[in-house]
Amino acid sequence: MKNPIDHLPARQQQALKTRQRLLQAGKEVFLESGFQKATISQVIKKAKTGYGTAYVYFKNKDELFITLMEDLMNQFYEVAEMPFKPQAKEEAYENIKNQVRLFLQLALDERDMMKVVKEAIGVSPEIEGKWYRIRERFIERISVDIRYAQAQKLAKEHLDPALTARCWFYSNEMFMWELVMNEEKYQMDDVIVNLTSMYTGGLYE
Amino acid sequence: MKNPIDHLPARQQQALKTRQRLLQAGKEVFLESGFQKATISQVIKKAKTGYGTAYVYFKNKDELFITLMEDLMNQFYEVAEMPFKPQAKEEAYENIKNQVRLFLQLALDERDMMKVVKEAIGVSPEIEGKWYRIRERFIERISVDIRYAQAQKLAKEHLDPALTARCWFYSNEMFMWELVMNEEKYQMDDVIVNLTSMYTGGLYE
Repeated sequence: MKNPIDHLPARQQQALKTRQRLLQAGKEVFLESGFQKATISQVIKKAKTGYGTAYVYFKNKDELFITLMEDLMNQFYEVAEMPFKPQAKEEAYENIKNQVRLFLQLALDERDMMKVVKEAIGVSPEIEGKWYRIRERFIERISVDIRYAQAQKLAKEHLDPALTARCWFYSNEMFMWELVMNEEKYQMDDVIVNLTSMYTGGLYE
Repeated sequence: MKNPIDHLPARQQQALKTRQRLLQAGKEVFLESGFQKATISQVIKKAKTGYGTAYVYFKNKDELFITLMEDLMNQFYEVAEMPFKPQAKEEAYENIKNQVRLFLQLALDERDMMKVVKEAIGVSPEIEGKWYRIRERFIERISVDIRYAQAQKLAKEHLDPALTARCWFYSNEMFMWELVMNEEKYQMDDVIVNLTSMYTGGLYE
């Protein structure tokens, strides 16, 4: 299969490649130095480009990092947006367990980058704000699934979908950070089964 | 009732008063300036003491802040350590709902200081570490309650007490931060009922 950028005019191809080189260099620098210690100088040196060129693509370190974080989060969104149309409680349980597993596994596969994300959220108000918006997108998506399950008379009707989705995302997010930081303290399967049991036990009839 | 420090020798009374003055001044400075912008100079000026004296009591800004945070957290521990000996699921539900309410209300009463705590956790690894230890203490206490409910055949036996306690604390902690930051977006009662329903529905038979 041909690379889709091959169809673009030469100048646009060049621009996309430069941007891609800056992102790749940025990722390497953040992984090596962490967020706070990383500098744009290190990035442009690694990407073999100048300040002026880099500035065309990314206003500053925060913006470059946010782009990397968005790319990473798109993989998580794919998990959150998996079709969810269970006909019975057991099917819901299996679907949800599967989603939790994929979500946590993805974080562990990207463990080193997630550690940098955690550091960056703590020190950059811009990145913290971006993380909050990412979180709200997940919570909205989960709310849709809860409303579906309520409409199917599978989930308890008295629960508020938005609050329940928030509660559920918080548990997943916090276990995700805990596993990223201290994976060795946990058995993944136990965490997945416990999280899923608590959630489906609370939500489903 | 006499103040308990009245019984101490004069020199110790003086020392305790100086320490107390530094803590009070520290709290005011942190509330005014936030954690990062606060300086020991501001604190000693407000406490009307010198650097050398301040250093006797607190090695640095982080240590003074951690002491303030511990004092605040002791109020939260009191809620976590309330007697929990339910004989039936309904009694457990009422006890837990009451605990959630007290926990969230305390955070809202201390909202301004909690905002500084959140900022400090993000920027100081020492304070972040302290927060993690505080969290573990809460989780251990909740685990005890879960084991009690399991022994009473009220709670599901297949759930892991430590993981379930962690999941539950995470939901409370995250809603607490969310309310501290955006109280106006929520109805407290809805949050309390939803959290408690999800937890007791998941955990109890």
